[in-house]
Amino acid sequence: MNRRKFFRNGTLSALGASLFAPFESIRASDFEDGWKRKKAKNIIMLVSDGMSTGTLNMADLYLSRKTGKGSNWLNLYRENKVSRALMDMASASSIVTDSAAASSSWGGGVRIKNGGINIGVNGEAHLPIWQKFKAVGKKAGCVTTVPITHATPAGFCVNEKSRNDQESIAEKYLEHGFDVLMGGGNEYFASDKRKDGKNMYAAFESNGYYVAQTRNEMLAAPKDQSILGVFTNNGLPYAKDRENNGELKESTPSLAEMTQKAIDNLKGSPKGFVLQVEGGKVDWAAHANDIAGLIYDQVALDEAIQVAMDFAEKDGETLVIITTDHGNANPGVIYGNYANDHFDSIQNYKHTNEWILNGIGRETSVSSVKERVEYANGFELTDGEANTLLGYYGSLNAEDGLYNPKHLPFSALAEIQKQHNSVGWISMQHSADYVELAMYGPGSQLLKPFLKNTELHYLMLEAAEVENTF
Amino acid sequence: MNRRKFFRNGTLSALGASLFAPFESIRASDFEDGWKRKKAKNIIMLVSDGMSTGTLNMADLYLSRKTGKGSNWLNLYRENKVSRALMDMASASSIVTDSAAASSSWGGGVRIKNGGINIGVNGEAHLPIWQKFKAVGKKAGCVTTVPITHATPAGFCVNEKSRNDQESIAEKYLEHGFDVLMGGGNEYFASDKRKDGKNMYAAFESNGYYVAQTRNEMLAAPKDQSILGVFTNNGLPYAKDRENNGELKESTPSLAEMTQKAIDNLKGSPKGFVLQVEGGKVDWAAHANDIAGLIYDQVALDEAIQVAMDFAEKDGETLVIITTDHGNANPGVIYGNYANDHFDSIQNYKHTNEWILNGIGRETSVSSVKERVEYANGFELTDGEANTLLGYYGSLNAEDGLYNPKHLPFSALAEIQKQHNSVGWISMQHSADYVELAMYGPGSQLLKPFLKNTELHYLMLEAAEVENTF
Repeated sequence: MNRRKFFRNGTLSALGASLFAPFESIRASDFEDGWKRKKAKNIIMLVSDGMSTGTLNMADLYLSRKTGKGSNWLNLYRENKVSRALMDMASASSIVTDSAAASSSWGGGVRIKNGGINIGVNGEAHLPIWQKFKAVGKKAGCVTTVPITHATPAGFCVNEKSRNDQESIAEKYLEHGFDVLMGGGNEYFASDKRKDGKNMYAAFESNGYYVAQTRNEMLAAPKDQSILGVFTNNGLPYAKDRENNGELKESTPSLAEMTQKAIDNLKGSPKGFVLQVEGGKVDWAAHANDIAGLIYDQVALDEAIQVAMDFAEKDGETLVIITTDHGNANPGVIYGNYANDHFDSIQNYKHTNEWILNGIGRETSVSSVKERVEYANGFELTDGEANTLLGYYGSLNAEDGLYNPKHLPFSALAEIQKQHNSVGWISMQHSADYVELAMYGPGSQLLKPFLKNTELHYLMLEAAEVENTF
Repeated sequence: MNRRKFFRNGTLSALGASLFAPFESIRASDFEDGWKRKKAKNIIMLVSDGMSTGTLNMADLYLSRKTGKGSNWLNLYRENKVSRALMDMASASSIVTDSAAASSSWGGGVRIKNGGINIGVNGEAHLPIWQKFKAVGKKAGCVTTVPITHATPAGFCVNEKSRNDQESIAEKYLEHGFDVLMGGGNEYFASDKRKDGKNMYAAFESNGYYVAQTRNEMLAAPKDQSILGVFTNNGLPYAKDRENNGELKESTPSLAEMTQKAIDNLKGSPKGFVLQVEGGKVDWAAHANDIAGLIYDQVALDEAIQVAMDFAEKDGETLVIITTDHGNANPGVIYGNYANDHFDSIQNYKHTNEWILNGIGRETSVSSVKERVEYANGFELTDGEANTLLGYYGSLNAEDGLYNPKHLPFSALAEIQKQHNSVGWISMQHSADYVELAMYGPGSQLLKPFLKNTELHYLMLEAAEVENTF
C-alpha cells in the first residue's frame, strides 16, 4: 500500500515536510544484528549528575526554541540511533540515592549505603569497574565539572569508606594510575590546602603525569602521557557564568573540551579505553534551584555528548552510555498564559543565581540588588522582594544546603523567579525518580527497557567481553 | 564465551537470582518482524491523564515495596514486551498543553490551541480519529473515571469549539453513535441537570443504547448492544475512597471493570474495534497535590492496563498504546533520612485529601480535624497545623484550583503531609515535560524513540492499515 496516502489530508501542510515519512527512518533495531557481531573496545559513559526528566526536557525545549535543533541527547532519539531504558537507582539504604552509592552501584555492581564509595553494607570492598578494565589493558579516565575526587568519578575508580575523604581519593587515583583525570578540586591536591600538606601535583608528576592547571596547559598536553588536570579550587564555574567571563574562559576548559582532550589522549590505547564524563554541576544547580546553572550546564553536558558521538560513530567499536545518577528537584515548566514567554526569557539570562547572590552582602543597597537581578535576569524586583533577599544576609534565617556554604537565599530567589520564568521545583534535594538511560554502539543491544543500576556494571563487562574473574 | 562468568563474583549472592541472566530474555525487537507481518485490527489506547514521570515511578515503587511485583506498566518494560518513546505534547498555543489540545493532537492529527476539541487555529474542523475508524467499520468506544464528555475522550470523538460545552459533546456522541461510552458526567445527560432540560438518557435509549447508571447495571449489559454508562454526577470517586466505602463499591465500577466490559462488548466486531481508556482523576489528584488520590488512581489505571494486555496477548491483532497527555505537578519522593518509611506510610493511607478536606467545615473543632487526619493518614497534626487548615474555611484566603470548586486547602495540607510522606510537588498545574509512551502489538514496530503528539494520529492509522482518505 501507498504510505503517502496516510498523510493525504487537507491539514497536512500545517505539519511540515518532516511528517511525510515519519516512520521510515532507520531504527536502532536495524543495527542490532550489526552490534551483536562487535564487541565494545571502548566505553564512554556520560553522566548528567542529578538530572530529573524535567531537566533533560527543559534543555531540549530551550535548544529547540532557540536554535530549532533540539538537544544532541534527544536528537539521538529523533534520529533513532540509540536504545533507551529507565533505570532504578535506589541504594542499599534508601529509595533516594546519593551520588556516592549511585556511582558505586555502577562501579562495583552492588548496592551500598548512601555516603560510601564501593564499600558494602558489611564493610567489604567491591572492585571498581575502571580497575577491572585497567587490569585487562585498557586505559581509563574521568573528566568532570566538579572536583575530580567527587563521588561520581570516585565510584568508578576506588574504594573509600566515606565520599568526603577526597584527599585520600586523590592518593588512590595515583596509586592505581588512572590515565586521564580532569576537573576541579585543587584543595585536595595542593600542599597548602591539604590537611596533610602533601603536594599531590608533585607526586603525580614524579609518576610520569603531565599536570595541567589552566585550559591552555590542558590543550598543550601531549598525547603519549597520562594527564592530571585540576583547574579550580573546588567545582568548575557554571557554564553560563564562564560564558560571560573572559577570565574564566581563559583559565578553565568546558566539559566538551575536556572530553575531546581525554578521547584524543586515550584513543591510541591498543586494547581500548574507558572514560567517564560527568556534568556534575547540573546536580549542584538543582540543589540550588538555579535555573541558569541547570539548563546551561545540561547544555554543556549535551555538547560533550556530541564530542563522544562524533568519535564513536567514526570508530564503530565504542559503546556510548548516556544517563544520570538520580533525579534532583524535579523541575518543570508550569502551565499558564505566559508559559512560553516566561520560559523563553531564560535565553536572555546572563548569569546564574550563584553569581547574583554571591554579589550581594548585608551592606548592599536595595537599588543595587534590583540592578543586579535586572542585569542577570532581565526583570525588575519589587522593593519588597529585594528586601526579602537582603534579609537573609547575616540572618539567623539564612538557608542551608549541601553546596551552599555561604547560606545564600537560593530558594527565596527561585520562588521570586518562578513568577517570571514559570519554572517550579519540588525541593532542593534528590528525588527517587527512575532515570533515563540511552546507549549507542556495540553492547547497546543488551539493554532492556528497565534495569536496576547494578545491572549496568555487568552490561559494561559483557559489552566489552571482559570476563568477571577478578 | 560463557556468559555466566560475567557474574562469577563474590558479591553475586547479594544480587538475587534474577541477575544470572539479565540480558537473555526475549527483546521487543525480536517480535518486530512478527508485528510487521500483521496489521492492528484493534487499538486500545490507555491514557493516565496528567501523569508526570514521577507519578509513574511512585506507583511502581509503591507496588514494588508493597507487593514485590511492581506495576503492570513497568513490568512490560522489565519483561521487554514493549517499544518506548518520549512524546512532545505541546499545543499550538503553549509548550504546556491542556487535556483538550493534547487529545485533539492525537485525535485530529493537528496541534490546536488549548481549550478546544479538534477545532484548528483558523476555526477549521479536523476529523476525529474514532470517527475515521467508525467509517471503515470498526466499533469505537471510550471509558474514563471523569465525565465521559471530558476533554480526553472528546478529543478522539468530536469537534467542539470549547471543551467546556459538555452538554453539546454528549449530543454529538449520540449523533455519531459511538459504541461504548462509560464514566461520570450525569450532569451533562440528566434532564434535571442540563441547561436545555433534554433527557439524554432517553435519547440514547431510543437510539438502541443500553443505559447503565450503576455498577450492577453495567455488569448486566448485553454484549450485542451499544452501552452508555454514567455512574456519577461529575467525576467517579477516587480509587482509594471507593475502596474504603461499600456504597461506592456497589454503585460505581472500577476503571478495570469498565475496561473489561468495554472489551467484552466490542471484541465481537468483525472489522475490529478501537477503545480509549482514561485514568482521568490522576490529573485531578495532581491538580490537588493529593498523593493518595494520585497513587491509587494510577494503580487503578495500571489494573486496566492488565485487562487490556490480557486481551491483546491472546488476541495477537491488538495494538496497545499506553501513555499520558502531559505532566502535572512533577511529584517525587525527596531525599532524607526517613524517605523509605515516609513513602511507605502512604500504604496505610485510608482516604484521599479530598475526603479529608470535604469532611471539615468552619465549625469543625481542632480535635476533630486532628482525628480525621490521623484516621486517614496515620499521623498527628499539631494544633497549629489544624488551625492553619481550619483558617482556610470560609476565609478570603481560600485556595483556588481547576477542580476545587469548594476552595479547599489542598496545597496547605500537601505541605503539611510532605514532612510525613516526603513527597514534593512543583505546583498545582500541568508541566511541559515530554511524556512516556509505550506500545505493544502490531504497529508498535513503527514507533521511534521520540515523537510529536500529532504523529501518533498517523501511526494509529498506519498500524491499522486505514488509508487517510477522509
